[in-house]
Amino acid sequence: MKILGVDPGYDRCGLAVTERDARGRDSVLASGCITTSPNDAFEQRLLVVVQSFREWIVTHKPDVCVLERLYFTKNQKTAMRVAETRGALILAAHECGIPVHEYAPNQVKVAVTGNGRATKDQVMNMVQRITGVVGNSGFDDEYDAIAVALTASASLRT
Amino acid sequence: MKILGVDPGYDRCGLAVTERDARGRDSVLASGCITTSPNDAFEQRLLVVVQSFREWIVTHKPDVCVLERLYFTKNQKTAMRVAETRGALILAAHECGIPVHEYAPNQVKVAVTGNGRATKDQVMNMVQRITGVVGNSGFDDEYDAIAVALTASASLRT
Repeated sequence: MKILGVDPGYDRCGLAVTERDARGRDSVLASGCITTSPNDAFEQRLLVVVQSFREWIVTHKPDVCVLERLYFTKNQKTAMRVAETRGALILAAHECGIPVHEYAPNQVKVAVTGNGRATKDQVMNMVQRITGVVGNSGFDDEYDAIAVALTASASLRT
Repeated sequence: MKILGVDPGYDRCGLAVTERDARGRDSVLASGCITTSPNDAFEQRLLVVVQSFREWIVTHKPDVCVLERLYFTKNQKTAMRVAETRGALILAAHECGIPVHEYAPNQVKVAVTGNGRATKDQVMNMVQRITGVVGNSGFDDEYDAIAVALTASASLRT
């Protein structure tokens, strides 16, 4: 099963495709981070993200698309734009016929590190240890996308 | 100038097309409310809303699409889904080449009633008085869509 993990954002959007081999080991087939220009209007940045996302679907033909659930914290305006980006991505996946699953942040932390209160760095380190991947983009979003894909891999198996 | 006003939602989504005549009077060319089934998954409801929205764009050829800005209040989960729907609609408008504008709730209240603290009923009554429209759908969302279109009509003129 090929899993497309997404860390949604309109500024940066992490993407990762993982696959589990016969021995139950997850490998990362591709990972990266889409970035958009702060000089562009929000709707244009949204379009850039969704177009790249659709290209990843065409290229990698995932069986499922998974996202981390978003909770609102401090910056409402940013959170709103991220939620809007999530919606555009969820629709794009559905229009491509790809089922969408969502996982809570603590589910991701438990699946990857065994600890629901793990820090961002702990998640990133475990992602590197599990998959051997050293991200290309230099952005956390890439690791977060891998992390949610690994969560789905463990969850969908059981 | 034809304005497509939207009151975004995945449960119900209000839509209205207004146009201002030579004497500066706004008329409502069409208004209604898309409804989706609570039995469907969110992504399917999102698709139903966005497909109808695209049909309205094709049918009415608006020059601009306008939405009321959303603020998070009590029910985070619902607000998140509404924000996601907004994002899918904003992208759909942009992909159709329609510029998108957003207005704060108090801008809408001021534009329609002259009072930034107007109640929902006061806005609805003024929408009926200004446009002569009695909504077909029986849902507030239809009036809210007209209200934001009227706001844009006043704002884009000045």
